[in-house]
Amino acid sequence: MNARVQGVPGRLDNIVLVADLAGTAVFAVEGAISAMRAQLDLLGVMVIAFIVALGGGVTRDLLIGASPPKAVADWRYPALALVMGGLAFVFHEGVLGISEPLLILLDAAGLGLFAVAGTQKALNVGISSFVATLMGTVTGVGGGVIRDIVLARIPLVLQVDLYASSAFIGAATLILARRLGLAPMACAWLAGSACFALRMLSVHYGWQLPRA
Amino acid sequence: MNARVQGVPGRLDNIVLVADLAGTAVFAVEGAISAMRAQLDLLGVMVIAFIVALGGGVTRDLLIGASPPKAVADWRYPALALVMGGLAFVFHEGVLGISEPLLILLDAAGLGLFAVAGTQKALNVGISSFVATLMGTVTGVGGGVIRDIVLARIPLVLQVDLYASSAFIGAATLILARRLGLAPMACAWLAGSACFALRMLSVHYGWQLPRA
Amino acid sequence: MNARVQGVPGRLDNIVLVADLAGTAVFAVEGAISAMRAQLDLLGVMVIAFIVALGGGVTRDLLIGASPPKAVADWRYPALALVMGGLAFVFHEGVLGISEPLLILLDAAGLGLFAVAGTQKALNVGISSFVATLMGTVTGVGGGVIRDIVLARIPLVLQVDLYASSAFIGAATLILARRLGLAPMACAWLAGSACFALRMLSVHYGWQLPRA
Repeated sequence: MNARVQGVPGRLDNIVLVADLAGTAVFAVEGAISAMRAQLDLLGVMVIAFIVALGGGVTRDLLIGASPPKAVADWRYPALALVMGGLAFVFHEGVLGISEPLLILLDAAGLGLFAVAGTQKALNVGISSFVATLMGTVTGVGGGVIRDIVLARIPLVLQVDLYASSAFIGAATLILARRLGLAPMACAWLAGSACFALRMLSVHYGWQLPRA
Repeated sequence: MNARVQGVPGRLDNIVLVADLAGTAVFAVEGAISAMRAQLDLLGVMVIAFIVALGGGVTRDLLIGASPPKAVADWRYPALALVMGGLAFVFHEGVLGISEPLLILLDAAGLGLFAVAGTQKALNVGISSFVATLMGTVTGVGGGVIRDIVLARIPLVLQVDLYASSAFIGAATLILARRLGLAPMACAWLAGSACFALRMLSVHYGWQLPRA
Repeated sequence: MNARVQGVPGRLDNIVLVADLAGTAVFAVEGAISAMRAQLDLLGVMVIAFIVALGGGVTRDLLIGASPPKAVADWRYPALALVMGGLAFVFHEGVLGISEPLLILLDAAGLGLFAVAGTQKALNVGISSFVATLMGTVTGVGGGVIRDIVLARIPLVLQVDLYASSAFIGAATLILARRLGLAPMACAWLAGSACFALRMLSVHYGWQLPRA
């Protein structure tokens, strides 16, 4: 890490915390919705809400050696997932009525938040830029991948329009913006926006990656 | 951790060790039985026995940052799983003849043991009460969940009568009993019994959680 | 660890590094091939290449408490997987034309390399011989198992002719050769060859383990 970055560890940790918690809230609701649609009971809804909300961050923390994972050491993470999943269960009539476009928009926002949080946290503990980009991607898609593995289906995020790729581009944008010397908060906004915009554009235009 | 607890680390570690090993033995036999019923060969039987017996504890240890996991650092864990899985394979005629009610009873005992061991170990390393309850639940259901993931089916424990919920209630009972100042051994027995009783009652009466 | 081993940590670490990287390259190509056969897009091909190449080593490192895993801390691991997976994608016409027998031979070589690297690394960090043998096996089969879990199918390696068993025998050979006092490099070659030979023979003769 360069000197400027080491001079503001508090601010960088705060960016990770805020982006992580905001992403956790969004993804917990999303997880609860997908579990209620699969007719799971209250426990199943809470388990899937936890997995989608916390799975990506836990995987990232295990991989970068930040042990124990923040989602275990800091009770606010699971408590937030519990509350959001519980609220989604109680108010299921309203929640299940959320339109598909709005869900995709919320999910894209969560993806951008997690891509930023994951990349920044990996950099904070001294992981190289290239691997930090991968860690940002893992943070963004990890929860959804584990949910699909638990539900015994091939992860959607490996199949749909530039999903993991959007997280990857967001993470790479963060690295690039830091190299250009932008302020930490500007880097975070730029990276999250890049991820969000690419995901929304890819859904709108049906962009796909090439096949062999 | 409070002063009283810190004064008897040896006793608390012993409770974890004994409950962990007893649960490991029970779950290794159960894993071997489910693998033999699925027509797997000797290796498959041993792998599934290991996964069911050690998967929950390994997941707990990775999540709470107890690294390396006890099941890797202490050879008695895998050796016990190896011996119990091997014995189940050799004496498969007798083992496969165990009646379903007896299997459910053994499994409920293993679940109670792991719920106690998991919660107590998380508390021992300084995890908050709320998250420790979740870790006790993960220890109880983790092995079965990983087995079902490996066998490409939706985890049974997310579907059947108050299975994970029983582990959760057992873990919560441990926390409550400690708050009330009961002796560590009394807390452990109370918590294990609560988990066991709830699981058996839920099977008998077919209790289910609500759906949205 | 005995005195002789502690005297040559550099050489032992080098054996792990070289075997790990060679296995990573072979398995990345294999992963890319299986993903291209499953009609995945460029991202899916890269993800599966990463999983098959790095999954076993990451699992081993998490289990033995070598944190963060080498595949995250050392950028050469993911860079190698990226380059090999990318080359397989670009030259897919040639790569997809590789004959089945040659693929099995390459895979058996990768399996031997990972079994050696996994066992040696576990011993290097002070894991007991018995558990180190299991860690060698996990390193060899882990990537393939995680790939199959992600693709929602029962892991092939639990079903085909002495696959995991070959890794286990290779790992056990390494332990035995070290006990006999052979030079580290001789132990590694002997163990890798034992795994490779047993795997090839089992495919040729269709050897199977017994069922209950």
